[in-house]
Amino acid sequence: MPASESSVYLHDIPLEEAWARLTRALQEAGLWGRLGADAVDLDHALGRVTAEPVWARRSSPHYHGAAMDGYAVAASATAEASERRPIDLRLGAEAVYVDTGEALPDGADAVLPVEDVEPIDPGPDRRSHRAIRVRRPAAPWSHVRAIGEDMVATELVLPAGQVLRPVDLGALAACGVLRVSVARKPSVAVIPTGSELVPAGEAAAPGEIPEFNSIVLAAQVESWGGLATRFDIVPDDVDRIRSTVAAAAKDHDLILLNAGSSAGSEDFSASIIASLGDLLVHGVAVRPGHPVVIGMIRRPGAISGRTPSAVPILGVPGFPVSAALTGEIFVEPLLARWTGRTPAEAQTVDGILTRKVHSSAGDLEFLRVTVGRVGERVVVSPLARGAGVLTSLVRADGLVHIPPGVQGLEAGERVTVHLYRSPAEVERAIVALGSHDLTLDLLAQFLAERGSRLTSANVGSLGGLIALSRGEAHLAGSHLLDPESGDFNLAYVDRYLPGREVVVLGLVRREQGLILAQGNPKNVRGLADLTRSDIGFINRQRGSGTRLLLDYHLKREGLPPESIRGYDREEFTHLTVAAAVASGRVDCALGIHAAAEALGLGFLPLFQERYDLVIPREHYDSPKLAPLLQVLETREFREAVAALPGYDVAPMGKVIAVRPP
Amino acid sequence: MPASESSVYLHDIPLEEAWARLTRALQEAGLWGRLGADAVDLDHALGRVTAEPVWARRSSPHYHGAAMDGYAVAASATAEASERRPIDLRLGAEAVYVDTGEALPDGADAVLPVEDVEPIDPGPDRRSHRAIRVRRPAAPWSHVRAIGEDMVATELVLPAGQVLRPVDLGALAACGVLRVSVARKPSVAVIPTGSELVPAGEAAAPGEIPEFNSIVLAAQVESWGGLATRFDIVPDDVDRIRSTVAAAAKDHDLILLNAGSSAGSEDFSASIIASLGDLLVHGVAVRPGHPVVIGMIRRPGAISGRTPSAVPILGVPGFPVSAALTGEIFVEPLLARWTGRTPAEAQTVDGILTRKVHSSAGDLEFLRVTVGRVGERVVVSPLARGAGVLTSLVRADGLVHIPPGVQGLEAGERVTVHLYRSPAEVERAIVALGSHDLTLDLLAQFLAERGSRLTSANVGSLGGLIALSRGEAHLAGSHLLDPESGDFNLAYVDRYLPGREVVVLGLVRREQGLILAQGNPKNVRGLADLTRSDIGFINRQRGSGTRLLLDYHLKREGLPPESIRGYDREEFTHLTVAAAVASGRVDCALGIHAAAEALGLGFLPLFQERYDLVIPREHYDSPKLAPLLQVLETREFREAVAALPGYDVAPMGKVIAVRPP
Repeated sequence: MPASESSVYLHDIPLEEAWARLTRALQEAGLWGRLGADAVDLDHALGRVTAEPVWARRSSPHYHGAAMDGYAVAASATAEASERRPIDLRLGAEAVYVDTGEALPDGADAVLPVEDVEPIDPGPDRRSHRAIRVRRPAAPWSHVRAIGEDMVATELVLPAGQVLRPVDLGALAACGVLRVSVARKPSVAVIPTGSELVPAGEAAAPGEIPEFNSIVLAAQVESWGGLATRFDIVPDDVDRIRSTVAAAAKDHDLILLNAGSSAGSEDFSASIIASLGDLLVHGVAVRPGHPVVIGMIRRPGAISGRTPSAVPILGVPGFPVSAALTGEIFVEPLLARWTGRTPAEAQTVDGILTRKVHSSAGDLEFLRVTVGRVGERVVVSPLARGAGVLTSLVRADGLVHIPPGVQGLEAGERVTVHLYRSPAEVERAIVALGSHDLTLDLLAQFLAERGSRLTSANVGSLGGLIALSRGEAHLAGSHLLDPESGDFNLAYVDRYLPGREVVVLGLVRREQGLILAQGNPKNVRGLADLTRSDIGFINRQRGSGTRLLLDYHLKREGLPPESIRGYDREEFTHLTVAAAVASGRVDCALGIHAAAEALGLGFLPLFQERYDLVIPREHYDSPKLAPLLQVLETREFREAVAALPGYDVAPMGKVIAVRPP
Repeated sequence: MPASESSVYLHDIPLEEAWARLTRALQEAGLWGRLGADAVDLDHALGRVTAEPVWARRSSPHYHGAAMDGYAVAASATAEASERRPIDLRLGAEAVYVDTGEALPDGADAVLPVEDVEPIDPGPDRRSHRAIRVRRPAAPWSHVRAIGEDMVATELVLPAGQVLRPVDLGALAACGVLRVSVARKPSVAVIPTGSELVPAGEAAAPGEIPEFNSIVLAAQVESWGGLATRFDIVPDDVDRIRSTVAAAAKDHDLILLNAGSSAGSEDFSASIIASLGDLLVHGVAVRPGHPVVIGMIRRPGAISGRTPSAVPILGVPGFPVSAALTGEIFVEPLLARWTGRTPAEAQTVDGILTRKVHSSAGDLEFLRVTVGRVGERVVVSPLARGAGVLTSLVRADGLVHIPPGVQGLEAGERVTVHLYRSPAEVERAIVALGSHDLTLDLLAQFLAERGSRLTSANVGSLGGLIALSRGEAHLAGSHLLDPESGDFNLAYVDRYLPGREVVVLGLVRREQGLILAQGNPKNVRGLADLTRSDIGFINRQRGSGTRLLLDYHLKREGLPPESIRGYDREEFTHLTVAAAVASGRVDCALGIHAAAEALGLGFLPLFQERYDLVIPREHYDSPKLAPLLQVLETREFREAVAALPGYDVAPMGKVIAVRPP
């Protein structure tokens, strides 16, 4: 049985083994090095990678020039000059005036700066005195820019593999290299497949999926120095996919065959690859991204010795996070190899994990996290882990690699984060955990314009206070109703942050009420209607202020939670419960006015609540939070928040309480 | 007297004050913020900066879809299912087969994975069974990708000021944003001036200077997100420069007026700016780069309220290092401001300075340095400081900022380096100090291809041994002749590194001889001819192996150094003495064959010498040096060195001695 058939059934080998197989196959095909070179003008060379060492073609400067305005002389003629026995040198014969940069005349090997000499029988300008008087000997080669001071012809100017920066282009031009040999950009075919796909931007019915992986993969290829060709979507039809791949193999260096999202779509890719060449890898033990397929296919019509006879192909998984990570894991190092540059290395920072994370022991997992420094600790918070949640990559400050053989990580464990941002950005981050509110998005925007950065994650109001107690956040947004006092937050702060010095800072008052389908078709008039059998409800998670608010009022009105259909269904944000109403999945939910308005839904206002920022004193007084406190004082920010429906900015920036009192 | 005239005479104000004046003027002109926005397709958005926050236009996913292949059901219908009392659900009516990604039918709110159910009266495929048997209740929304799992319509997807990465483009496409508003690219006119300039690449006579600053400035502008227009060289003619600047002001956001290298050329810029608007700054207390000129000039034909009525202009100094640093100091932050992104921040590393550095106390100096880790210490070595030495920027690993008020830095002082490279690259560097040899350039190239990095500086053979004794280098290239024994290096190692465990590793034997004008027009036959009165000589610096070799043989032949014209002139490399011969400045010099050959010069072989690598044991055994030792074993490297004229690779890789013996 040929290797290609047997390996169709391989699954989830370690990443190193997958790389080893790909490397070996590329070596055998003569594709484990620079692909080739282009000669480009300096105007088009920025960011390209030198394909060979560059040696200076001429020296820079290419002549001995004056480094100051002054008189070019033979130093030996001044050797005896002294204060007591000055020497006069005749202009034209023994001294020649030179501006900075001018060439020294033959025989001159030093420049006397104008301020160091006296003119004798001065003329109208520096060139027309009769002579100059010198009272000090000039050292040979003083105030002279000698030939080759910067570069000597034939010297190594740049090594091969250098990504060309602006100053490199200057050095090349200075030493006479106006065209430079740079690595050819590898050409990469990006082929999206899947009958369920529609081009992004076109209307998509339920069950149809906008195709955007090819946008991400193509942009990755471009940013790593390749040339991407995005193919049209190919439906799930073996013959059409195979012929598209075979055609792409003619004139591309690499093929990225993006599987659809349906289960088995990657097996499809595998059998097509096996039919066109050798299947090397079918499944890699990484998460997200394990259904990666790797192969080498025959290049149609390759002329032996001129073009390589095989083309590597990656079957890229369909889920967007898997697809993007496959790019980072496989495509970036390959393009670096082919252009001869050093692959980009993520910087790392060590920090403390805030939450326990389970992991599949057999896989290398790439956990997306946010990172910030809170006091002395760097705090690392896991983001959503689903392979479909692309925003987890967008919001990630970096990745934690959980190695195979590790079942998971404990809260409080020390982890290394491979950063997507600079360590300086991590240092600058203000970490907000707690209840999410739209004003936090606006606040983040205003802070960004001041060079500061707010990173927030929604863990509910109680979750935020607990995070503060553990030293995992600088502040927590909170709207926890105290059933005893009817006031917000203070009782909870006393309970969850006992003895801790904390400032409770007002942000907004906001309306909570029932989010309803537009026009309120089921005629919901109040909380009591939630118990109607024809009403489906969706709830917020335990610990959220909205949940407490609901429970408080249900109790006041004597409405048992178990009489509400959907009381047990939990979502984590105002927008997601509103989306559930918008989709018709449920009839109503408790939430804020702005969320209803955002999705064009009906809203029945019921209560007002205060949303505060709870800030431990040491952070409140720290320079890091100063920009945030300043933003709360600006008219622009108050107006932007006041324009949101259901928001009252009266409490904004007011210290509600300092605890302990 | 108007402000513009009085300020012509200002000089060298602190950098902060210069920025404050520019900021104020830009604020008054309404130019202290984003310049404007372009709407671009995602295909053209990579690397652009969002001009406004982006809110999701639709939810992603936009429907409830199956997260696995299975049967969509109403979870409530399975609530009573158990192992003992399984429930059968009829296909079509109570359960519908769905592939991963398919939309759930109305009423379904959970997916039962195929492996969790038994088919009843199985059909030929999963869609055609009569019923399925369920033995466990399904949790509502299990195995369902719910609407908005990734993004909910109206949610903030990206803030303004985000530099768009591949995954950001994916997120935009996923939520229905196919065109995105990005900051308009600021247009920047780059105008080189100076009658001495000729376009780079054209033949340049002595006194003519190839113009390449505009290449560097334009590339900087492009790499910082602007659009550069390179103007033709304008000679030193006030009227022509003024009319060129005035024309450029019509359709550019910023003008970079690059002064010539002649003294006073910047004053020229200043008076032209003053005549076209307001001169704000004439001289900034930074080195290199202090003759920076800053102004605001009137925009011809500006229609009030539509286009700004003024255009900022920077008079950029003529020396190449000054010009490039002016770009970094002023242009980069301004373009960042105008596009709304956070300016790039250099990473920093702290280290120990290897040499004393004097600095002008009034100025902020940007000292170019190389950086490497040697043992426990990060070692920071100053590079050439002349504003004309562009290669000092090309070779720099970073800058040390010497603040105004500081007269200089001591050897051994702790300094902070603002890096041009990643800290990982710094960690990887092998630091070679000592005598320079062409083979080190080749070695650097071979190491680069293995992902390692050799950084070398020429301090002469003795300087290298002293650097080793101070722990400032991993290895030193050395060819020091011991006049007693006639052997190389060992006696010096014993003297300069007493008691230190050191490996002396052979690299090459090479020819030294007299480098002569082609054809040997003065008929030089040996060392004795150096004393002829018609022969001009140039020497190597004290401490260099070549100098020792010369002195040894002069003594043997009884030739007094003072009888040699030019014995006191010192250069630091083989190539620079060869260049001195090539230019006709001197008649001969002692050096290696390869240097003569490189510049097409004559060569009279006189001696053979051994060039060794002196490596302290702890570095010799360290993993960092392993790639270097490997390269010395490769056939490719030996062949490349053997191809150089005058080189014998017999000693390569052989341990000559281990000291102490």
